[in-house]
Amino acid sequence: MASTKTEGARRKAGRRKKEDKASTADLLLDATSELMVERNSAEVTFADIAEHSGLNPALIRYHFGSKAGLFMALLERDAGGTFHNLETLVAADMPADQKLRHHVFGVIKTYWRYPYMNRLVAALSLESDSEAARFIAERFTRTLSEAQRRILEQGEREGLFRKIDPTLFYFSVIGSCDHLFTARHSLKFAFGVEEIDDDLRIRYSDHVASILLDSVMV
Amino acid sequence: MASTKTEGARRKAGRRKKEDKASTADLLLDATSELMVERNSAEVTFADIAEHSGLNPALIRYHFGSKAGLFMALLERDAGGTFHNLETLVAADMPADQKLRHHVFGVIKTYWRYPYMNRLVAALSLESDSEAARFIAERFTRTLSEAQRRILEQGEREGLFRKIDPTLFYFSVIGSCDHLFTARHSLKFAFGVEEIDDDLRIRYSDHVASILLDSVMV
Repeated sequence: MASTKTEGARRKAGRRKKEDKASTADLLLDATSELMVERNSAEVTFADIAEHSGLNPALIRYHFGSKAGLFMALLERDAGGTFHNLETLVAADMPADQKLRHHVFGVIKTYWRYPYMNRLVAALSLESDSEAARFIAERFTRTLSEAQRRILEQGEREGLFRKIDPTLFYFSVIGSCDHLFTARHSLKFAFGVEEIDDDLRIRYSDHVASILLDSVMV
Repeated sequence: MASTKTEGARRKAGRRKKEDKASTADLLLDATSELMVERNSAEVTFADIAEHSGLNPALIRYHFGSKAGLFMALLERDAGGTFHNLETLVAADMPADQKLRHHVFGVIKTYWRYPYMNRLVAALSLESDSEAARFIAERFTRTLSEAQRRILEQGEREGLFRKIDPTLFYFSVIGSCDHLFTARHSLKFAFGVEEIDDDLRIRYSDHVASILLDSVMV
């Protein structure tokens, strides 16, 4: 009985430790995310993150190893979390033009939630760490471009789309989806728009999706 | 005679001093530009620029006042130098669809030559200095978006273009033109393309111009 109790307590303590570990890592990711949104930049230091989260900066190294490790974990959380939906969309029983439209709305919604995403990708690409470069290429760029390639091929098979270079297409889609968010300083200073609200997000998604569909549809 | 000689010598010395001043400033801008291309980033320090140019870092402050001053001068040199051509294009006796096509080729050629340009704009927008924000808004964003608005309006008048929101259009044009260059790490790591050569520049310009024209033309 005593031994069972002890084991139960040990298991409970172990679980709590695991939960604590998970939640500390989450708190550090949340703090990094919030700082990047506030600053509209991926330039944050361990000291900034420690101050913002109220946690010891040594915990960042403990949980993520390095700044590249932290940035990869954040990208995995923010973008990686949407890739299951993307996979579902690509596999769905739906015409290619509707898939492309949903894809554009999905990408823009991700940038809307995490406007620092392409800054984060760019910051990671500057790391001399080749793991970071491989991570971006395989986990981020190829996942997105592969999904787009499959949607474009489906559209061609269905006789809906003209033939289009999927690599060039990738850069034009991602660039147009992202720029409203990366350059939101322009939105504020040149156009007087302080905030990207839900209405603007939807109007912009519709604008970009229409431009792309008008072009690819035969 | 002696006095004339002296005056001539004084004028000559004055001219040389002015030329030296101009060329020192140019050398500092060249060094900054080269470092930004090498690093694919706008993160450069006065010390980096001094080392790369072989000039004293105090000269940066002397010529440009601050980092924001240096960045504004570089943006003025790189982008500002193309705005005369843009003005000529907008005013030209040419149908709006051809103007839009030339505009896309022009913007992409500028990003091809100065791939750090939008990083530079973003770095300037983070400056607390309100002069930098005003400079970007008035000299950069508004110049480009105003030219686009005039081309779109001409196209509508000519019955060539449908009605289109010029602000949303601005972000989709600039984002799609820029992303191949801002994200050239993706081009390398995910698609195996090491360099954006003249052929790729032209194919991408043609791709983006076609997407936009297919959409705006009635």
